[in-house]
Amino acid sequence: MKTFYSEAHRGHAGHFELAGGRLVPCFEKPVRAEYVRARVEEVGLGPVLAPKSWSLDAAARVHDAGYLDFLGRAWDMWAAEGNHTTALAMTWPVRGLRNDIVPTSIEAMLGYYSMDAGAGFMPGTYAAIRGSLDCALTAAECVAGGEAAAFALCRPPGHHAGSAFMGGYCFINNASVAAQWLRDNGAARVAILDVDYHHGNGTQEIFYARGDVLVCNIHGDPNTEYPFFLGHVDETGTGAGEGANANYPLPFGTDFESWGAALDHACGRIEAFGADVVVVSLGVDTFERDPISHFKLTSADYPKIGARIAKLGRPTLFVFEGGYAVDEIGINAVGVLTGFEGR
Amino acid sequence: MKTFYSEAHRGHAGHFELAGGRLVPCFEKPVRAEYVRARVEEVGLGPVLAPKSWSLDAAARVHDAGYLDFLGRAWDMWAAEGNHTTALAMTWPVRGLRNDIVPTSIEAMLGYYSMDAGAGFMPGTYAAIRGSLDCALTAAECVAGGEAAAFALCRPPGHHAGSAFMGGYCFINNASVAAQWLRDNGAARVAILDVDYHHGNGTQEIFYARGDVLVCNIHGDPNTEYPFFLGHVDETGTGAGEGANANYPLPFGTDFESWGAALDHACGRIEAFGADVVVVSLGVDTFERDPISHFKLTSADYPKIGARIAKLGRPTLFVFEGGYAVDEIGINAVGVLTGFEGR
Ligand SMILES: [Zn+2]
Ligand SMILES: [Zn+2]
Repeated sequence: MKTFYSEAHRGHAGHFELAGGRLVPCFEKPVRAEYVRARVEEVGLGPVLAPKSWSLDAAARVHDAGYLDFLGRAWDMWAAEGNHTTALAMTWPVRGLRNDIVPTSIEAMLGYYSMDAGAGFMPGTYAAIRGSLDCALTAAECVAGGEAAAFALCRPPGHHAGSAFMGGYCFINNASVAAQWLRDNGAARVAILDVDYHHGNGTQEIFYARGDVLVCNIHGDPNTEYPFFLGHVDETGTGAGEGANANYPLPFGTDFESWGAALDHACGRIEAFGADVVVVSLGVDTFERDPISHFKLTSADYPKIGARIAKLGRPTLFVFEGGYAVDEIGINAVGVLTGFEGR
Repeated sequence: MKTFYSEAHRGHAGHFELAGGRLVPCFEKPVRAEYVRARVEEVGLGPVLAPKSWSLDAAARVHDAGYLDFLGRAWDMWAAEGNHTTALAMTWPVRGLRNDIVPTSIEAMLGYYSMDAGAGFMPGTYAAIRGSLDCALTAAECVAGGEAAAFALCRPPGHHAGSAFMGGYCFINNASVAAQWLRDNGAARVAILDVDYHHGNGTQEIFYARGDVLVCNIHGDPNTEYPFFLGHVDETGTGAGEGANANYPLPFGTDFESWGAALDHACGRIEAFGADVVVVSLGVDTFERDPISHFKLTSADYPKIGARIAKLGRPTLFVFEGGYAVDEIGINAVGVLTGFEGR
């Protein structure tokens, strides 16, 4: 399969995040995409191609227009106030505060449009966001054009980004934009299968009231795992989307035996749903040595994930999400793809 | 008038907050209360007394029980995970995320029960919170007992704390708890006048649907000033509270001429409301040299504030809130009190 990769991601570097009461260098760093790309080339998965440039039209189908506009202006507004380090929010509009007025200062807008201090801007961040989006859309176009599968090597990732907020290293929800683009270009029913360790809260939020896009998430229990405030089993969709959202929260220490059972169940949902296309939010932070996660998948398990998804027999778009054990990130991520291809 | 002061505040020290994309030592530090206390003694305002110890019953009248329980356990839960630095949240339940499930891990609970990373726990924080509450209630008891005025030298401050969240250096909303206690102990109508530079969002949230407690706030425009997401003029109360909330957001650079006009208007509201008691959330970060604020009040203006409040002719409880220009914090805060006493 083809891999789409944009060099623009490299400029999104050196950013910090708030964790454990400290500001620490982000685990989400450029080497992640570089190692995955190197592994793609090492195993000869297929060509690594630069994506086409896309406008924001497709993104605007699932994201708030004001939010997208903010993403393009955030760093410049931050720098204009004399800041040189990572642009991070400091206050959030939680319950008891208003969400109906978009504030005008950059400090306030960062909070208004985010869920945490884990999606920080550096000078090259916006170009990286756009390059990542370009990868997702170009790969989606491939799949819509008849290829069995394609790999969008997105960085930054996307699945925590909601319709109008960033968070958890994510800005534009690449998988959601791609799923919507596929809907708008011939697919009547799209399934999103999120196998990242963390619940894809943004993806769920975006499609929660939609019956045409099934969202399945296998992830760490939100009672103890980021993003904490979404991802429970009783979240089954609303309105026209009732029944089109499935969560599989799993406890600390889950190994492939239990994890694979959840995957089997989710695949059954996708078959019953009759998806025309499958979009996989491909995170490999389920790995046993991931520094911020607590599942126990081994490198030998990732090809099995790909093989199980291949059994669905549907055009499949892989969109890269998380994974922070960088030494094995290439082996694990590309393992899913070679497993999908049956080799 | 009597001043109530608890030494327990000193243990709430060395905490950091997120500001400008950095973790910086909090501007809210022990010397603030020490300098105010020293000035109280220097001008001979009256005795400085230790407060009585109070249970959480009065606080539970305006705060969520789970939240109060969390405050008592937060540091120990944080330390049990091997943390030594300030306990700070990292993710918040904004729109699109759930607020109906209280998570179980400390990282998640810190986010669930906060609006920012500006109310951090250190080992001595909870004792300081309780000491601050004790000051507010003991001073309220004084006023209810017939004294014309009393000063609760509270630290940490309280006006940003909502019914179920902390933020902006605040944990328990001392002024709100005191106002409720006054309601429960003979006052039919209570007015809260918040003159801190920042909007007292917690106080507003707590009483927003109540017609028996008038809340008036004079503060920096929330479009550009913390707490950003509350404090607009169209927030006039709801239900039984309709008309019992008044906001006076003012722009950068406001001097006493404009600020005093807002105070006059607020005092008119308090008179019309027929308050039996006035609770003043006394912040002095309106000062021209405050390091985090943008009004232009001078030290000569603070006695005028006290004199204007005295003209209301009602029993008055002063509850200390913000103010970060520490060199002048005593002169300014105590200036309001001596102005009130007409000397
Ligand atoms: Zn993840
Ligand atoms: Zn303040």
